[in-house]
Amino acid sequence: MHLRVVLVEPLYEGNVGSVARAMKNFGFHDLALVKPCPIEDFGCAMASHARDVLQMSRNFSSLSEALADANLVVGTTGKRLEDARHHLRLHLRVPCLSPAQLAAKLQGKEGTVALLLGREDCGLNSEELALCDMLVSVPTSDEYPVMNLSHSAAVLFYELSQKEEGPSGSVEMARRESLDLLLERTKSLLSEVSYPLHKVEFTLLMLRRILGRSELTEREARTLLGLIKRIRWGISEEAVNRTGSSDVKEKGN
Amino acid sequence: MHLRVVLVEPLYEGNVGSVARAMKNFGFHDLALVKPCPIEDFGCAMASHARDVLQMSRNFSSLSEALADANLVVGTTGKRLEDARHHLRLHLRVPCLSPAQLAAKLQGKEGTVALLLGREDCGLNSEELALCDMLVSVPTSDEYPVMNLSHSAAVLFYELSQKEEGPSGSVEMARRESLDLLLERTKSLLSEVSYPLHKVEFTLLMLRRILGRSELTEREARTLLGLIKRIRWGISEEAVNRTGSSDVKEKGN
Repeated sequence: MHLRVVLVEPLYEGNVGSVARAMKNFGFHDLALVKPCPIEDFGCAMASHARDVLQMSRNFSSLSEALADANLVVGTTGKRLEDARHHLRLHLRVPCLSPAQLAAKLQGKEGTVALLLGREDCGLNSEELALCDMLVSVPTSDEYPVMNLSHSAAVLFYELSQKEEGPSGSVEMARRESLDLLLERTKSLLSEVSYPLHKVEFTLLMLRRILGRSELTEREARTLLGLIKRIRWGISEEAVNRTGSSDVKEKGN
Repeated sequence: MHLRVVLVEPLYEGNVGSVARAMKNFGFHDLALVKPCPIEDFGCAMASHARDVLQMSRNFSSLSEALADANLVVGTTGKRLEDARHHLRLHLRVPCLSPAQLAAKLQGKEGTVALLLGREDCGLNSEELALCDMLVSVPTSDEYPVMNLSHSAAVLFYELSQKEEGPSGSVEMARRESLDLLLERTKSLLSEVSYPLHKVEFTLLMLRRILGRSELTEREARTLLGLIKRIRWGISEEAVNRTGSSDVKEKGN
């Protein structure tokens, strides 16, 4: 398992440097920065002996570029008060794994895992959270749940660096494209069965999370794609069978 | 168990503030400072909403005073190159628990535990280590084992604050019957779309494993049941529409 740490629009160079240091402390080196603040002397000072991690980091102008070729995207979220207020936001943020649960899930997996850490003041926004296959949150006290960015990072790296060989060897994780295709085909299917429009977004997001948490293998993803193809074929075929003698309507896609 | 965090001669006020913040994040409030650097604006800024922890902290002119009435004294040590060179130093530093082992040992214990964190540059000295009942060390990479003080603190507080609850409270897992029903309905759907008979058993097993691994919630299970119902309805509806010849069904997209 290769970990890519993705900082989304970090505001303070000191935090970026601190995250780089914590990465190297736990053996991680792949740092991606999406529209970061300028990183100058103070950032380098905080990185201390992990300046090489900062120097090798890559800057991206969009999150999706930073996620290219990642097999799994994990978003970090904090416990925030507004969570409960909006249903969609709530859904975006749950269910959420603990760092130890995430580490256990990734045990023995092959592939690239992108771990997203959001802005210091407001974390990841809804659009960014919707791109995540899984969510993780460091459990904190209700009294003061907002952690320093590099502290959450250190706790996550600590958990993710605890290695024990999985019992059944490593498994090839599904490719990002396969997951995206799966959701795209599901969306088409939903439309073909007149699934209520206002539920589509919610249901697709829920499916992304379920599939994310289940750590789909590439083989499973392909089987599911075949299953959906068969269902969609079944719908049109059924129609053709029934119409038989009467006129056959052209079916759009 | 009451945790007292003891910083021994911290050199940088930013780190003291950061430790205070991490303490409050994990529900700890008792901070003791042994001959600390002056703590001014930057330290307070790093404490952020944990300024109260800084304000309530107590200063001591010797370590032994700071340890008064502690039931157990735990020293933190880093992995350092000189460890192996001096037998006495080596002996002082081993055996050493991992943070998780320490947390397990303290589980369900009553009393005050003093957790000692040493200077940023050279940690705890031999005399200080000799006062400790137990040692703990955060496992780090050999390449760069020296962590930032507040990062080690955050990892230790994280482990010591772990209770059984997950970060987002407990989540209602899907009922066994809901899962069984989900697979039963999927089986009917497969038959309705003429899914190859020899693949049915395999596919259902695969789905059970995927859903099992995703630790489905009851709410998600019900949404999936609704989805399958809609698909099956879509298949028959499609057929009826086509055979009925006259009605043109509105097609959502």
